[in-house]
Amino acid sequence: MCTTPPTYWNAPPFRTRTRDARHLDTFARVDPLDRYLDSNRDRFVDELRDLCRIPSETGDAAALEAAALWCAERLRAAKCETREFRVAGEPALVVGETGGGKRTLICVQHYDVQPAVPLELWKSGPYEAAVRDGAIWARGADDNKGHLLLRIQAVEAYRAVHGELPIRVRFLIEGEEEDGSAHLAELLAKDPTLTDGDGALKEGGAIDAAGRPALLLGGKGILYIELRVRSMARDAHSGGATHLPNAAWRLVQALNTFVAPDGRILIEGFYDDVRRPTPAELEHVRTLPFEADVLKTIYAIAGFAWGRKDTEARVASVFEPTCNIAGIVSGFIGEGTKTVIPSEAMVKIDFRLVPEQSPQKIRDLVRAHLDRHGFKDVDLIAKEGTRPYRGRMDDPLVRAAQAAAEQEIGKPAMLIPSSGGTSPMWQVCGKRSLANVTLGMGHPNAGAHAPNEHILLDNYWKALRATVALYGRYATQQ
Amino acid sequence: MCTTPPTYWNAPPFRTRTRDARHLDTFARVDPLDRYLDSNRDRFVDELRDLCRIPSETGDAAALEAAALWCAERLRAAKCETREFRVAGEPALVVGETGGGKRTLICVQHYDVQPAVPLELWKSGPYEAAVRDGAIWARGADDNKGHLLLRIQAVEAYRAVHGELPIRVRFLIEGEEEDGSAHLAELLAKDPTLTDGDGALKEGGAIDAAGRPALLLGGKGILYIELRVRSMARDAHSGGATHLPNAAWRLVQALNTFVAPDGRILIEGFYDDVRRPTPAELEHVRTLPFEADVLKTIYAIAGFAWGRKDTEARVASVFEPTCNIAGIVSGFIGEGTKTVIPSEAMVKIDFRLVPEQSPQKIRDLVRAHLDRHGFKDVDLIAKEGTRPYRGRMDDPLVRAAQAAAEQEIGKPAMLIPSSGGTSPMWQVCGKRSLANVTLGMGHPNAGAHAPNEHILLDNYWKALRATVALYGRYATQQ
Repeated sequence: MCTTPPTYWNAPPFRTRTRDARHLDTFARVDPLDRYLDSNRDRFVDELRDLCRIPSETGDAAALEAAALWCAERLRAAKCETREFRVAGEPALVVGETGGGKRTLICVQHYDVQPAVPLELWKSGPYEAAVRDGAIWARGADDNKGHLLLRIQAVEAYRAVHGELPIRVRFLIEGEEEDGSAHLAELLAKDPTLTDGDGALKEGGAIDAAGRPALLLGGKGILYIELRVRSMARDAHSGGATHLPNAAWRLVQALNTFVAPDGRILIEGFYDDVRRPTPAELEHVRTLPFEADVLKTIYAIAGFAWGRKDTEARVASVFEPTCNIAGIVSGFIGEGTKTVIPSEAMVKIDFRLVPEQSPQKIRDLVRAHLDRHGFKDVDLIAKEGTRPYRGRMDDPLVRAAQAAAEQEIGKPAMLIPSSGGTSPMWQVCGKRSLANVTLGMGHPNAGAHAPNEHILLDNYWKALRATVALYGRYATQQ
Repeated sequence: MCTTPPTYWNAPPFRTRTRDARHLDTFARVDPLDRYLDSNRDRFVDELRDLCRIPSETGDAAALEAAALWCAERLRAAKCETREFRVAGEPALVVGETGGGKRTLICVQHYDVQPAVPLELWKSGPYEAAVRDGAIWARGADDNKGHLLLRIQAVEAYRAVHGELPIRVRFLIEGEEEDGSAHLAELLAKDPTLTDGDGALKEGGAIDAAGRPALLLGGKGILYIELRVRSMARDAHSGGATHLPNAAWRLVQALNTFVAPDGRILIEGFYDDVRRPTPAELEHVRTLPFEADVLKTIYAIAGFAWGRKDTEARVASVFEPTCNIAGIVSGFIGEGTKTVIPSEAMVKIDFRLVPEQSPQKIRDLVRAHLDRHGFKDVDLIAKEGTRPYRGRMDDPLVRAAQAAAEQEIGKPAMLIPSSGGTSPMWQVCGKRSLANVTLGMGHPNAGAHAPNEHILLDNYWKALRATVALYGRYATQQ
């Protein structure tokens, strides 16, 4: 899911808003959608909490299945025809279709979530889905269960307020997105018409701290690898550190050949296939609002990594690939002291890729780099790979989403060519070069992939209203 | 405890030895010590297993107290007068004294053990003290409970066979050795006569694979530190890796400034105080037997670390300081994939020091080095520090130990100026510049500080006999 920009992360809690149902007697309701939402808010929130309580992390087959069934049932409740596609032993792809019209909007979502660890940092349980301060706190509330659900609820709301949908909406809800969508291409190939559509409404999306909707028109690819070193048959007493090989040192030395102090990746050939932005694209991104100070406050950092200034950071977030250590471990990491030479060390690295980098090719380049630098003893295990995808900006879908966002969220929308994150849009949009867009409710402090993930209900209703508007506008948008 | 050389790690199990008690009827007994041991072997083994079953790891106050009490009781059973010295809240120093004569031998031991983790790698529980294949398998069996106990049992055996001890033996048994002996100086200062003696028999000691006793005449010092980086208030989605600071990368970069590919430590001033060996010392160590191939087989390594040849490794093990990563951790280290930018990273490093390096000064040098290289954000926490100590070779104690070892272990002894490991000999021997020596039974594959630590019973009886001989010889040794 996207990291990109910011919102209302310290917005007033929902209960103080003038649109609160408790004020029905005080304020006249003229907008039928408002009236509909007012009478369904509690149910919609309960539904989201229900879904968030399912701990659908990778590897928890029962929870993933429960989440898939929940989604299928919810789609049927919204009058979608549903189908399921399966690859043996893997989470199902849940498909739901409804509405009619000339255009088909493919709504690409996922019901799996990132691991909730480290649990001790959560203020309330990640699968409790606590409501406090106008927010819902749960793993997946932002990425991506909230986004998934509001798009279904928007179908219901559209019908309740405007009548039958003027477009066909096809939900593709997978269960392996956080694990690299390894089987999505295979699942989609079971019915090639699944990707026949006019554009894709993708997962996620955000509203910045100033309340501006950020519409993402693409995402980076990813290569997730593990590097493992075994330097000896077993750990040894560190009195032998003069001559017994330390796996941790070995891994540190290997890692140090990967990235320069300015963040440039030193793996030979790494940038060869990178599609450089045009001057116009660069200028567009440079002049987009960027809440650098909000990000710095949230993360309590004095400056950005790799010595990047604000605008450099913004441009890099869209156009630059990365080499990120997601985790590293070796030896004794408990309390106290243990004087041991570790015989094993492991690091997890995710490379975020930009068009036209290929995960497979990057994997081969990393292997060749290690060999060339004398690290043949470092094992490389590729865990997942997804191609990057950047859709076009000049498209009816983007125009419709922009108009819907500005109408319902009330500020100028930012069109961002690519998220820093990854979605499997290559698999969905690649064949027909479809435009894709987010229209979401994340906020800069939402904590996707981190402890205390949460969404602001205020944003939730805005994004839901915007999605209803999109369904209507996209039908006729030029 | 020492890492140094090698023994009988695949020796035949004890039960097949001709000296086994079951063969009493077959073989005439002429040696009274043999006869005494034959009738006490089962009890002595049971005692060691009892002691090893106490999980006296740092931080387990109850287990440490139980081990201290066990030792005091065992000392009293060997007719020692016992005392205990305490610093509030810390493990006791147990003192036991017995015998008389012109000389006093200070027997420096410890009842605490290294953490047994990782538990899953143990073939039998670390505190089960299983007996199999002629060995006892337990955390602490080698380091240092076996050595501790056999020196007490040797007092009993001496008296049973030869009558009253001709020397005074003073046991100083501490409970913080594996944690840096932080309070030992303070405990010893409570009675300054505790370190008044003629020489010190220190913990540990080993017999190499060829059966040669290795007598260690000193040990390295240690500085154990943690480096901690917090790069952000919390973890972030790795889509932001273009500009959000990764604590793991930061730590890897800092670590990379510490050691050159040849193992030389790059911290400015690190070698300033190192006492270089004399040509004679170098030649002595170069020509000592060194079972490089045995070590390489045990650890399944093709060559030594830092590109060191066999003799270089031997010389370095005695004279070179080290900078060892004992553990490192950051971010997501579970199964599967999580795309996170870690906000925290931690590494544990032990520096083994040689005379005249001071742990306090090295700590200051590391801090200054980090600051100079732009890593002011890396916190340094010093966890323990012990000065190195190398005693003289030309001393009656060393001559007595060598003679006792060669007589009872049956091969030429190797006089090794320093262990790769650390003991608190500075605190015990520093004031009076006492000689110190090991006379032990460890073997190259004993696994001190590692899973499956064990001792070979065959070696145990040899070292016990040698200790009995030392008590007698040292009384009159010139």
